[in-house]
Amino acid sequence: MKKVKFTLKSQELKEKKVFRDAIHNYIHVDHDVVLKLINSAAMQRLKRIKQLGGIHQVFQSAEHSRFTHSLGVYAVVRRMLEESVIGDYLNDYEKLTVMIAGLLHDLGHGPFSHCFENIFQQKHEAYTVRIIKEDQEIHHILEDCVKGLSHDVASVIDKTHPNHILIQMISSQLDADRMDYLLRDSYFTGTTYGQFDLSRILRVMQVRQGKIVYKYSGVQAIENYILARYHMYWQVYYHPTTRCYEQILISIFRRISDLYKQKKINCDLEYLLPFINHDVSIQDYLNLDEYICFYYFRKLSQHPDTILSDLCQRLLNRKLFVYEDYKSAKQKSLIETQCLKAGYDPRYYVFGDDQMQIPYLHYGNKDDIREIEIIKGHQLTSLPDVSEIVGAIIKAKENKTDSKIYYPETIDK
Amino acid sequence: MKKVKFTLKSQELKEKKVFRDAIHNYIHVDHDVVLKLINSAAMQRLKRIKQLGGIHQVFQSAEHSRFTHSLGVYAVVRRMLEESVIGDYLNDYEKLTVMIAGLLHDLGHGPFSHCFENIFQQKHEAYTVRIIKEDQEIHHILEDCVKGLSHDVASVIDKTHPNHILIQMISSQLDADRMDYLLRDSYFTGTTYGQFDLSRILRVMQVRQGKIVYKYSGVQAIENYILARYHMYWQVYYHPTTRCYEQILISIFRRISDLYKQKKINCDLEYLLPFINHDVSIQDYLNLDEYICFYYFRKLSQHPDTILSDLCQRLLNRKLFVYEDYKSAKQKSLIETQCLKAGYDPRYYVFGDDQMQIPYLHYGNKDDIREIEIIKGHQLTSLPDVSEIVGAIIKAKENKTDSKIYYPETIDK
Amino acid sequence: MKKVKFTLKSQELKEKKVFRDAIHNYIHVDHDVVLKLINSAAMQRLKRIKQLGGIHQVFQSAEHSRFTHSLGVYAVVRRMLEESVIGDYLNDYEKLTVMIAGLLHDLGHGPFSHCFENIFQQKHEAYTVRIIKEDQEIHHILEDCVKGLSHDVASVIDKTHPNHILIQMISSQLDADRMDYLLRDSYFTGTTYGQFDLSRILRVMQVRQGKIVYKYSGVQAIENYILARYHMYWQVYYHPTTRCYEQILISIFRRISDLYKQKKINCDLEYLLPFINHDVSIQDYLNLDEYICFYYFRKLSQHPDTILSDLCQRLLNRKLFVYEDYKSAKQKSLIETQCLKAGYDPRYYVFGDDQMQIPYLHYGNKDDIREIEIIKGHQLTSLPDVSEIVGAIIKAKENKTDSKIYYPETIDK
Amino acid sequence: MKKVKFTLKSQELKEKKVFRDAIHNYIHVDHDVVLKLINSAAMQRLKRIKQLGGIHQVFQSAEHSRFTHSLGVYAVVRRMLEESVIGDYLNDYEKLTVMIAGLLHDLGHGPFSHCFENIFQQKHEAYTVRIIKEDQEIHHILEDCVKGLSHDVASVIDKTHPNHILIQMISSQLDADRMDYLLRDSYFTGTTYGQFDLSRILRVMQVRQGKIVYKYSGVQAIENYILARYHMYWQVYYHPTTRCYEQILISIFRRISDLYKQKKINCDLEYLLPFINHDVSIQDYLNLDEYICFYYFRKLSQHPDTILSDLCQRLLNRKLFVYEDYKSAKQKSLIETQCLKAGYDPRYYVFGDDQMQIPYLHYGNKDDIREIEIIKGHQLTSLPDVSEIVGAIIKAKENKTDSKIYYPETIDK
Repeated sequence: MKKVKFTLKSQELKEKKVFRDAIHNYIHVDHDVVLKLINSAAMQRLKRIKQLGGIHQVFQSAEHSRFTHSLGVYAVVRRMLEESVIGDYLNDYEKLTVMIAGLLHDLGHGPFSHCFENIFQQKHEAYTVRIIKEDQEIHHILEDCVKGLSHDVASVIDKTHPNHILIQMISSQLDADRMDYLLRDSYFTGTTYGQFDLSRILRVMQVRQGKIVYKYSGVQAIENYILARYHMYWQVYYHPTTRCYEQILISIFRRISDLYKQKKINCDLEYLLPFINHDVSIQDYLNLDEYICFYYFRKLSQHPDTILSDLCQRLLNRKLFVYEDYKSAKQKSLIETQCLKAGYDPRYYVFGDDQMQIPYLHYGNKDDIREIEIIKGHQLTSLPDVSEIVGAIIKAKENKTDSKIYYPETIDK
Repeated sequence: MKKVKFTLKSQELKEKKVFRDAIHNYIHVDHDVVLKLINSAAMQRLKRIKQLGGIHQVFQSAEHSRFTHSLGVYAVVRRMLEESVIGDYLNDYEKLTVMIAGLLHDLGHGPFSHCFENIFQQKHEAYTVRIIKEDQEIHHILEDCVKGLSHDVASVIDKTHPNHILIQMISSQLDADRMDYLLRDSYFTGTTYGQFDLSRILRVMQVRQGKIVYKYSGVQAIENYILARYHMYWQVYYHPTTRCYEQILISIFRRISDLYKQKKINCDLEYLLPFINHDVSIQDYLNLDEYICFYYFRKLSQHPDTILSDLCQRLLNRKLFVYEDYKSAKQKSLIETQCLKAGYDPRYYVFGDDQMQIPYLHYGNKDDIREIEIIKGHQLTSLPDVSEIVGAIIKAKENKTDSKIYYPETIDK
Repeated sequence: MKKVKFTLKSQELKEKKVFRDAIHNYIHVDHDVVLKLINSAAMQRLKRIKQLGGIHQVFQSAEHSRFTHSLGVYAVVRRMLEESVIGDYLNDYEKLTVMIAGLLHDLGHGPFSHCFENIFQQKHEAYTVRIIKEDQEIHHILEDCVKGLSHDVASVIDKTHPNHILIQMISSQLDADRMDYLLRDSYFTGTTYGQFDLSRILRVMQVRQGKIVYKYSGVQAIENYILARYHMYWQVYYHPTTRCYEQILISIFRRISDLYKQKKINCDLEYLLPFINHDVSIQDYLNLDEYICFYYFRKLSQHPDTILSDLCQRLLNRKLFVYEDYKSAKQKSLIETQCLKAGYDPRYYVFGDDQMQIPYLHYGNKDDIREIEIIKGHQLTSLPDVSEIVGAIIKAKENKTDSKIYYPETIDK
Repeated sequence: MKKVKFTLKSQELKEKKVFRDAIHNYIHVDHDVVLKLINSAAMQRLKRIKQLGGIHQVFQSAEHSRFTHSLGVYAVVRRMLEESVIGDYLNDYEKLTVMIAGLLHDLGHGPFSHCFENIFQQKHEAYTVRIIKEDQEIHHILEDCVKGLSHDVASVIDKTHPNHILIQMISSQLDADRMDYLLRDSYFTGTTYGQFDLSRILRVMQVRQGKIVYKYSGVQAIENYILARYHMYWQVYYHPTTRCYEQILISIFRRISDLYKQKKINCDLEYLLPFINHDVSIQDYLNLDEYICFYYFRKLSQHPDTILSDLCQRLLNRKLFVYEDYKSAKQKSLIETQCLKAGYDPRYYVFGDDQMQIPYLHYGNKDDIREIEIIKGHQLTSLPDVSEIVGAIIKAKENKTDSKIYYPETIDK
């Protein structure tokens, strides 16, 4: 196979580039293809999408973008190759493949990630794969470097690559993606929760039976990382004010769709139309970012439809809803009545929101957790078998729920 | 005077609000008027203007907004009132006035600050004052709190307030504005240069003859702060890649103006037109932010004018220019000729840029530096009289220059 | 009661003192009695006792003393009084009492804490109380300030003080002692494990039914703190190399006792004799510190008894033992035989060490854990009832054990 | 030459050792000879000598030892070899030589460094060289590794080694020693002053004409480092309280000498006698550390000579002197008279102390400063020629003086 003959040397930049970063200090770019990808339109678009959506409504300094996170994931992959033993098990072509997969893994994110996915039924993982294969610029950069590279990078992301080590490095319970976002989100929110000992985890990585496993002496460091994630979820990611902000976003997109279908919007919504019409090409997808959405919100904040203009003004000017614990359908129905009385259409102004499902998505099912395997004696055991704490986390996520109901501050209760 | 009877107690929120922040940890909002100002459209607009313009092209994690800085300045003012002796010299009304002046001091910033000011001849300080006095929402919030408050806040910012202490807290060589931005920019760029000992500086503040002066024992901490600023300027703020990014921005705005005057632009530039036509109301000014500009850049990146579309694509996709030290007019003229030959109009594609003037603007003239006064024995002396290092900085800024010339990478030299 | 009339104002220093500290930045000393206590012989002796015993054998920079920790506990108590609501529930005399109790709480520590307690059967808590009551200098400083103060400070430490809030501030599951040592030990070992959000915990403190309880919104911050402690124990405090260092110390003290009883030591052991003879006055106790012990180790490293001199040289020059997991009495007996064959007396050269008991001591029994009470709705519930993670920790400590066996490297196995 | 054939591989430990450190995180020990040196008596003795003498009297957490600094210097040398280009210019034997020179460079420090040198006229640099050559354990470890290694290591320290790069790495204006102590002292004092960007300095190192020079793009990072040092000197190292502590130490040693010569001391001063008698063997030198000195201070605090016992109690129990600016001989003479009247012998109780000379020693003469050479264009220029700030520092040190006079608090003035 030709690719095995590939050497990283052949891709070395004459003058290596460095990006400064608050998390990884210097991020080194040594290879021409990586620099070209960084400076592509699809990657630069991620500068206009926030990593943490509306979390800056509470943790005000969390304004960082998916772009800086993406470069961070690339940096963690690079450290794995240099500081852990993994590098000994991969050839140069695989190393390049996984560095690029780290860099590009979030290409498919739309604006306001999860709420956008919700409303327009788009899955970012699928889009990442499609962009790598179909976007002309990205595709050319990859294929000009090595023929077949776009396919191989995509197969790391859709988990079909034959080498499981590469897949684990990018998407597993303990991958470069999660490692960067915990450190980064912790730093930019200014909380201490997400800190863990990356150096130590790199030092206890091992390869057995073609996959990444961990020395027993590293269990505490891994526990620490799992708990960091647990705390970030409940303290930061699921903060009720953030969820409220996202509910307003969903209402706005829903109202736009509804009005558009009733032909009640006649201003230029060029970049949004494909999504409303459910006919989205890769280029349409890449055309949209949060900056453009905010342009529309600004425009629509003057729209004659009072629901739409009010919701846009609320989002732009931080007139968020209030919330209380969700207790019963009756409670919700009462609030909806009051809302109606106050002149608010409950379809756009009252939301129940239940965080119980989400940890499940993020922490994976029990099989995913088992993916962190520990060498104990001469055998591999799963992490929960050697860590009571992790067992408790698994159990906790099944029980811990937080349901809220949101509505406008001004209704009379 | 009625205002003296004003008590902060009367403005206290029933439930105090807290913003989390990476620099100041918890930013407490105790007063109703402050919370309303934070949630006003004019303040929230600052979320869509980056604090450091194009610096994130190099220091990638410097993506923070002018909004977070503004809340940070408010937080530093609050600390000055609590942790230094200054609080003992001000009444409740003055305290409220200066906290609000800190919060609002950057309201008048346009998108891409300095390059926008350059091209459209707008001064942000003047706009801040106008917005405080003329923007309906801001004006009402202030006047509803205390009659005359908008005038008094504005007079702190335009330096006409009778109490010099308030002016010094917001705009002097050692003010809440600079203190927050050094700490903040240092943190988000991930450099160590801008760190200084804020606690110590607060501890050595004194009031003499109606103005803020400093104990002699604080000279080293102040030197440290001045040097932090010096280093941030040369290491971060004046980084040549950033200046290149700003030159492209200037070229884009220039090209838009030129084409518009030739009636060659027919797409909707609603929010930009008042600036092109030099007829800008306060509301026009507040309508524009960087998100909207980026929407236009996106649109115009498909415009038939190849200069405009090329420049927009360069900005969006990080195809920056190269640069070299500026040595002579002859060198520039040669580059312009080559540029022309390569098909680039030098008026939009070749720039000289000279950083010599800027430190002067930022560090102020010698009179400004003298504003930092030190109590030595029983007398006040100026900082440079007791610090050789600061003297050297003053001298250095006259000598240190960095002139570059920028042009497209692809021209044949 | 006279003491209620006591005002902190009366104790204010004309010139307040400040100590710089890496954890709390500035530690302010405002009151004369506190300054006098800091500069007393009994407190200054704690500068010559390391906070973390032999942990610096692995975490080399953990060289901090019990003195700096003591000042740190005082600083946390001060923050509790200023930043939490607790201050509203205490009068000036109680505030002084608890600040001093924080400062003095470790006065009774002997050199090499736990292993010294082991060998000489001394309990540091009992000595702290005795020193406060019986040491002339400490007693006079306290009584000169307010008559009865020494009794009241002591009663906070021996948990007989009528106001439970004071006791909880100094010794409970979430007290100033643990808070300072986690932050401090984490900083000086250079690990991230011990970091938690002190500001947030202070903000969620409440007083109900005469004791300190916590808002429900603070549960995550408290979980984070409990886990920080859990990790510090297993990653730092119980590191096997450290335990080995302590075993050698125990052997040395045992050998000295044994030889002394056989009249085989004739050099001057003045400061150690009272301990060997089990006749220790308060002054004897305060005379001994780690520096003096090291002087003896240095002297005794030339002693004709080869066991004693060898052990002392091992301790001084880091010739530690090797270790392996303890599996059976048979294994131990085999090692002892080999040891004997190699010329080492197993009574001083082979140790089993079992960490199972210690977490119990530190984490307290279930009743102690219940002391962290959470306000949920209008009721108080215990922390484990609202936190699965803490429940798991309680369970984990019962199961998690780590038994090692230590012996000289050079024996033939 | 045989040594050129030496390979580091041959010294590799089967199981590499790691020390955790708050500054460098993991300090890796890869080579057998290095591990043996770390565990030698001469190196372990440095654990009992504080890095910053009496500075912990003010910056309380600065309790770190010369041992941890020594391992830190070794760690910086290792980073220079790995992260800068220097490694490309040295063979394996030179690499080992310079790593060891870094580790051992402070072996010759006595207790309380500078004041001990003052009173007993010992130079620590000379002792370091003698210990490397003459101490049996150190000598054997080195010679067993490679014959001639002890000579070569010593020649790096006494600056006679033929390869100037090695000398510059250990002792120059910008060496591993200063780099570690600035970062370390800054961290443990809890000040921000000493922070600088080590990564960046490593990246701009170059080798020209057989010596280490720096890229022009690194000038700001170097300025930042020089200023960090400048601030640490005036804020931390020369703090008057520290100097006072050291003056009392000097008085104690002087009084011991004086009494001993008058045969008025009859207790066992075994480890101190060689110094008093000015007949110090290498072994005598290595026998003494600060712990042993404190044992003597403790003993002598009960000595019948009231001057000696009083001074010892002052040192042990932090009863320091007061101080004021030194203005004239007349002022000093007046204080001496008052002192005498109060019963204090001015020879031991009144000191003038002038910090003017010391910066000269530390910053070196102009020739030393010139050692930092910058590549500008194709030429080497000295740092002050391209940096006004550094020029100002050189000038400042000539002017900046701080003279104090110290005496007991209780005298009547």
